[in-house]
Amino acid sequence: MTISPLAPKHFPPCSEISGVTLAAGVGGFYSNGRSDLMLVELAPDTVIAGVFTQSLTAAAPIDWCREVLKGGCARALIVNAGNANAFTGRAGDRAVQHTVQALAKVLECPENHIFVSSTGVIGEPLAVERIIGALPGLKKDLSPTSWQAAAEAIMTTDTFPKGATRKAEIGGVTVKLSGFAKGSGMIAPDMATMLGYLFTDAKIAQPVLQRMLKDAADKSFNSITVDSDTSTSDTVFLCATGRAENSEVTDLRDPRLDNFREALESMMIDLAQQIVRDGEGAKKFIEVTVTSAASKSAAKTIALAVANSPLVKTAIAGEDANWGRIVMAVGKAGEKVDRDALDIQIGGVLLTMDGLRRPDYDEKPVTEHMKGEKIEIAIDVGVGRGKATVWTCDLTHGYIDINADYRT
Amino acid sequence: MTISPLAPKHFPPCSEISGVTLAAGVGGFYSNGRSDLMLVELAPDTVIAGVFTQSLTAAAPIDWCREVLKGGCARALIVNAGNANAFTGRAGDRAVQHTVQALAKVLECPENHIFVSSTGVIGEPLAVERIIGALPGLKKDLSPTSWQAAAEAIMTTDTFPKGATRKAEIGGVTVKLSGFAKGSGMIAPDMATMLGYLFTDAKIAQPVLQRMLKDAADKSFNSITVDSDTSTSDTVFLCATGRAENSEVTDLRDPRLDNFREALESMMIDLAQQIVRDGEGAKKFIEVTVTSAASKSAAKTIALAVANSPLVKTAIAGEDANWGRIVMAVGKAGEKVDRDALDIQIGGVLLTMDGLRRPDYDEKPVTEHMKGEKIEIAIDVGVGRGKATVWTCDLTHGYIDINADYRT
Repeated sequence: MTISPLAPKHFPPCSEISGVTLAAGVGGFYSNGRSDLMLVELAPDTVIAGVFTQSLTAAAPIDWCREVLKGGCARALIVNAGNANAFTGRAGDRAVQHTVQALAKVLECPENHIFVSSTGVIGEPLAVERIIGALPGLKKDLSPTSWQAAAEAIMTTDTFPKGATRKAEIGGVTVKLSGFAKGSGMIAPDMATMLGYLFTDAKIAQPVLQRMLKDAADKSFNSITVDSDTSTSDTVFLCATGRAENSEVTDLRDPRLDNFREALESMMIDLAQQIVRDGEGAKKFIEVTVTSAASKSAAKTIALAVANSPLVKTAIAGEDANWGRIVMAVGKAGEKVDRDALDIQIGGVLLTMDGLRRPDYDEKPVTEHMKGEKIEIAIDVGVGRGKATVWTCDLTHGYIDINADYRT
Repeated sequence: MTISPLAPKHFPPCSEISGVTLAAGVGGFYSNGRSDLMLVELAPDTVIAGVFTQSLTAAAPIDWCREVLKGGCARALIVNAGNANAFTGRAGDRAVQHTVQALAKVLECPENHIFVSSTGVIGEPLAVERIIGALPGLKKDLSPTSWQAAAEAIMTTDTFPKGATRKAEIGGVTVKLSGFAKGSGMIAPDMATMLGYLFTDAKIAQPVLQRMLKDAADKSFNSITVDSDTSTSDTVFLCATGRAENSEVTDLRDPRLDNFREALESMMIDLAQQIVRDGEGAKKFIEVTVTSAASKSAAKTIALAVANSPLVKTAIAGEDANWGRIVMAVGKAGEKVDRDALDIQIGGVLLTMDGLRRPDYDEKPVTEHMKGEKIEIAIDVGVGRGKATVWTCDLTHGYIDINADYRT
């Protein structure tokens, strides 16, 4: 597997998070012996927030995690790659139960403090004994520094591990955030589920943590698309061990959270963009910003219509400044726009005016921009104040290669 | 341009329709001198029904046609290929006006009885003098038999002309229907707008005709997708000259319409399927049927989610019976489904039971079916009585080839 040309140079040096230890192991879900199991142990009293796929054919681990998230406490995360345990019926539920029971025994903790994810092929029975057999070894290997190994163990069609780390201040106390994610065909494939695991030592009440995670997810993981397909297993967790010295924050509007919120959003956008940069077959990273829409959600709908348009994405793959396709995609979004006031910019160059191409439009700088690695599209739709930015990648022969021959 | 492997063997022998004459000509919108102009003259008192794109960045001719359709009478249709006259501002509106004024003079008829379509590249000024200059020659060439020439003149990225013809009885009187269409990336591209022109000699009141066209469009042209993109110019007209001997039908519920309605639907489904068979890069024709959904529209939403999924379409291109991706696409549609009662069939073979793969599932006959030209997917979602069928094609390297290098 060739590494994506859009990959960052190296995995970032993630801060250790007090109360978090990680381990990677081999469950044998892949025939080449690569690591495919990940265990995270969390200190007692760690609170957890989570967001999940909206899919109505969600996988068995999602059902379990939704249920135990109600308790809001976590002692462990266990993840396997290579099999999604999705559309596996009652056997799938039993596989989750067996994993949880075994891990609760190994870690001596309540079963409802254990969170499970699986990513991989849909509809194949999960060989749960491979996970259970590996648990003692994983426990022995737990370490506060194994961030990259953990990020690698959850990869599927990913071509590089994705990590990010930040620091923030809460009431004068420095807190740390580290996390990692996987995904390469987000909102995406059966083998490219989006998973994200984020950790902090900050002391923050669970309801506040949950709301901050959801808000930041809307601006990051929910603002990216590779191919418009939604996985049955998408999951993001944010775990707060509370080991930092800050006094607990219990109010979402507490101004002491401002800096933390910013760091969390920045980390999540970083990870989300890394997923797009690993989009199946991607050669270009694309940012689409829509302004002056009727509302924030209208802006996002229009931006996603552009970002998901196969015609826009293939034009960009061909380095063709085909702005007519952008007009088409804006039109099909179904949200209010003023056709004759539409301002379309590519690479900072304004192409349109009064509902048509600018008479003095010079395609040269735009063509130059299209040859680069990052393509910037900005669209002002001229009806209100709503604004949104989403990220995607181009649609290339590589996507067809990867997905037409996946199972075979 | 290679003809699609899914194309019918030949253009059908379309019946002449009393009161309809057609001509094709060369406007020079293409450098190779191919025909790119089409004129249809209709007998006085012809009534017309129309349906248009839902795009909010619709082209100038759409604005004009929506307006004059209120009158319900047509004397002529004028169409050019090679330039969509879309996103062309006030100059685009003026181009339509000039065309209409000139044609009204040539045919000596009211301007609001003239309907205009343009298909081709978006955002380029339309050289309207090319159309106007060709009108006298087009008028001279009008003939009741030029169906194939007309169908060829409106093609853009199409690889074959698309025609269909039917007969029906209204109250014991035989009436005829003939029509043609273009499109090869429907719900689709800047150069693959869907256009359809249908004609009958039946005597049917305009409001009845309009409603029948809309209902039949929902089951045909609105039930196909190539790449989920919506053109700025999609248009279908149904013109009834009233030259047949039937006494006028003025009530939508008149049982005398049953046979005509059936023939109209059959003709429109035929043309719609031909568009899918000419889908950009298509190698497989795919039928997706959803049953037992909460409603008819829920069934269509789920069927379109499957038909538009790049992962389903690339799997079919790879002849891979990857039914996990069908589960994924059903789940992302957002409509109610019973995951554990989902019945998925490919090529008539039932793959699932009780929310998982059938224990006795034999992939062989399904793999054999995947090698064929027509792929049949049937999904029972187990919650209600809604049913819908949609048609699409696979997503291949050919689609990328065509669309990544289109303008260059």
